[in-house]
Amino acid sequence: MKVDLNADAGESYGAFTYGHDREIFPLVTSANLACGFHGGSPGRILEAVRLAKAHGVAVGAHPGFPDLVGFGRREMALSPEEVYADVLYQIGALSAFLKAEGLPLHHVKPHGALYLKACRDRETARAIALAVKAFDPGLPLVVLPGTVYEEEAREAGLRVVLEAFPERAYLRNGQLAPRSMPGSWITDPRRRPGGPCAWCWRERWRPWMGGRWRSGPRPFASTGTTPRPPRWHRRCGGPWRKPG
Amino acid sequence: MKVDLNADAGESYGAFTYGHDREIFPLVTSANLACGFHGGSPGRILEAVRLAKAHGVAVGAHPGFPDLVGFGRREMALSPEEVYADVLYQIGALSAFLKAEGLPLHHVKPHGALYLKACRDRETARAIALAVKAFDPGLPLVVLPGTVYEEEAREAGLRVVLEAFPERAYLRNGQLAPRSMPGSWITDPRRRPGGPCAWCWRERWRPWMGGRWRSGPRPFASTGTTPRPPRWHRRCGGPWRKPG
Amino acid sequence: MKVDLNADAGESYGAFTYGHDREIFPLVTSANLACGFHGGSPGRILEAVRLAKAHGVAVGAHPGFPDLVGFGRREMALSPEEVYADVLYQIGALSAFLKAEGLPLHHVKPHGALYLKACRDRETARAIALAVKAFDPGLPLVVLPGTVYEEEAREAGLRVVLEAFPERAYLRNGQLAPRSMPGSWITDPRRRPGGPCAWCWRERWRPWMGGRWRSGPRPFASTGTTPRPPRWHRRCGGPWRKPG
Amino acid sequence: MKVDLNADAGESYGAFTYGHDREIFPLVTSANLACGFHGGSPGRILEAVRLAKAHGVAVGAHPGFPDLVGFGRREMALSPEEVYADVLYQIGALSAFLKAEGLPLHHVKPHGALYLKACRDRETARAIALAVKAFDPGLPLVVLPGTVYEEEAREAGLRVVLEAFPERAYLRNGQLAPRSMPGSWITDPRRRPGGPCAWCWRERWRPWMGGRWRSGPRPFASTGTTPRPPRWHRRCGGPWRKPG
Repeated sequence: MKVDLNADAGESYGAFTYGHDREIFPLVTSANLACGFHGGSPGRILEAVRLAKAHGVAVGAHPGFPDLVGFGRREMALSPEEVYADVLYQIGALSAFLKAEGLPLHHVKPHGALYLKACRDRETARAIALAVKAFDPGLPLVVLPGTVYEEEAREAGLRVVLEAFPERAYLRNGQLAPRSMPGSWITDPRRRPGGPCAWCWRERWRPWMGGRWRSGPRPFASTGTTPRPPRWHRRCGGPWRKPG
Repeated sequence: MKVDLNADAGESYGAFTYGHDREIFPLVTSANLACGFHGGSPGRILEAVRLAKAHGVAVGAHPGFPDLVGFGRREMALSPEEVYADVLYQIGALSAFLKAEGLPLHHVKPHGALYLKACRDRETARAIALAVKAFDPGLPLVVLPGTVYEEEAREAGLRVVLEAFPERAYLRNGQLAPRSMPGSWITDPRRRPGGPCAWCWRERWRPWMGGRWRSGPRPFASTGTTPRPPRWHRRCGGPWRKPG
Repeated sequence: MKVDLNADAGESYGAFTYGHDREIFPLVTSANLACGFHGGSPGRILEAVRLAKAHGVAVGAHPGFPDLVGFGRREMALSPEEVYADVLYQIGALSAFLKAEGLPLHHVKPHGALYLKACRDRETARAIALAVKAFDPGLPLVVLPGTVYEEEAREAGLRVVLEAFPERAYLRNGQLAPRSMPGSWITDPRRRPGGPCAWCWRERWRPWMGGRWRSGPRPFASTGTTPRPPRWHRRCGGPWRKPG
Repeated sequence: MKVDLNADAGESYGAFTYGHDREIFPLVTSANLACGFHGGSPGRILEAVRLAKAHGVAVGAHPGFPDLVGFGRREMALSPEEVYADVLYQIGALSAFLKAEGLPLHHVKPHGALYLKACRDRETARAIALAVKAFDPGLPLVVLPGTVYEEEAREAGLRVVLEAFPERAYLRNGQLAPRSMPGSWITDPRRRPGGPCAWCWRERWRPWMGGRWRSGPRPFASTGTTPRPPRWHRRCGGPWRKPG
């Protein structure tokens, strides 16, 4: 079983540097690149695309809410039509850099508050799925398993990527523990026996996601949206570290 | 001889409406659509793309400086690398809407101060040409004939579209009269005998552009960047009005 | 009894014109000027301030959500600290133009979705009230009567301006009819016997607002946020039309 | 003789942190705070104002070009009217936070490319000076001595602050060495015998600025616009370190 070790990247904006792309890219197999709305200016996106190419990292689009000052983390009351247009715009913008560098677009994963809203608001989820489909019906969409968002992605006929979060605690019902709950954020990778990815495999995909991960693209072990040193990523060794 | 009657469009931004897309689209053969930097929010771009589709208008990308408040009309000291990345980003964003609507990207024409800077700054011109080439080497680029910008577009191996401006006065050397010169703006279409496009053909392409227009895509009769009623466009009758 | 006939203005942004400031300013007694976040670029704000000065219109600040593309009409999940800082920033920016033109700042009225959120979210309301108080404890704040927003404004010790909307229908309990309800928008001013302001006086302030309007600044008859011809404003004749 | 040891600060924007405010504020006597255009979101400006208050650092406004993605470092062709309105807007926005925290506005210093343009373009310089004067005729404006910018500031009747740059090399004629010249950037503070501020005093203010610094506010030893560790600031010991 191969999984994708995935991280957010390309979020720097002009003179403002965000995250640790240089440290993380040698360690992951795929990255979600910001597309200009919550982060990612054209020049910094291009820089991240070239870095991904140098490290053989597969690149996905990471469209977010149009809220640079809030880094896309504040929910916004966009209509489904607005979500559709915003997502399409951002996927297109990112894909131009991939085209220029001769790389394929590997997947789409919504960012921050847009992702979270899609998980519980069916109309937002559908708008995202339809935008991805309109751009390329074969393009995989990353979803949180067991949500209306997963349902809408499947309903649209898209290939879905199921993801689990090795850094996050889960509730007994399989849902993510809210960030406000003490212990919801696993700061010590040693609390994931066998390594974070092995943990994802053993505790998440196999038991919770049923056989759904078998039919689609390889699932994601996702390492979140906050800038941090690559300590976690180094712990994700073994067969999960890099494809091939 | 067929020419393209071309206009700027898609420049509205969210609740802010700009220009007269609905009046102009029935009259032109191609339009340059704003891509979000000087105008054009995702929702309003999508609206313009659908309108263009309904009227059979060919759509080009109209990338501009990242200056929404200045409408891209104020020159900015961007490095060639910044121009390259900004143009690529904007072409990609627009092309996503075309892909979703099943339309081809017809051409690229830089907007406002970026266009004017390209006409006299070789490095800016080259950065634009390389961005277009990186996105699609077969994509035509609209240029002002007789400038370093035309030279760089040809040097990059691109197909060039030569354009003339029926609303603008020209100097004896073939260059555009500066806007500060009295009479530089032809407000009465009747001062273009035979109609504005016929005038372009007779006075511009044939004599000034030599045979260069023969080898490339059909030349543009361009009706500028300011919002105005479609009086001019109606005068562009005859064989130039609509293709086919 | 004198009331303030109030309108939104100053919402144009660079080359994008919005609303009908020139038509409306001769008819109203006060205006809420956009401060740059949902509309209002520095140059266009200054233009509106000078126009207000020429017509003797009192100027208030109209701070909104940081959402230019959505015109501040989409609710955003800002923290109270973010609301406080955003409102303070916008009041300050507008007041600089008033200082330059020798005009006082007459009031503050939040715009669009920020106003609506304040009416039902106590923390947002308090953050706005505290920002106004921090800038100037004597500055009046415009509120919708009977809401937590009014409560928080009074709790902060601010002078409150009560407003009624002559163009909107009201429910029997005194609250605004939702826009989705048929007939919620009164398109014909003749349906307000005696004129819209007289209607406000007779139907709103006296019966619904009790005696609260007596202790504070003169109440507002507010003519909304959508651009429209000044037909409504002309109907607001008699003693309400202009002060003095 | 007392001088002001001055630094740029408050340039962080939402989730994007820029510079080293916490390290630098204990070491300087005044700071120029970004006002939202090239950096500085409302929440981060407020944070910087509170930090300045805690350290007794005098706060000035640092208005820049409206170019967040370029960090205000790219020259823009703004009209004088646009410069005037943009500077006024930014001074007002910053001053609201100072008002809320009970601090005075200490000075204005334009940022980046706006500052550099003012030094050689008289109309830009005059627009800045007039904006400062319109806001408060007693507000000091920081200028580069010997430029048209200094002339216009004096012509407007403003109090001028003369500044020298201890980190920069100077030409024999008293002008700053261009950054493209090798050695133009003094990376080792020990090359400023007696400490950077003493150097400014001995080499700059006394000999080059004549007696002009005597008549105005205390001059600035300015430590530039790039983020760096506070090594330089620590070398500025003795009587210059802190006022009082």
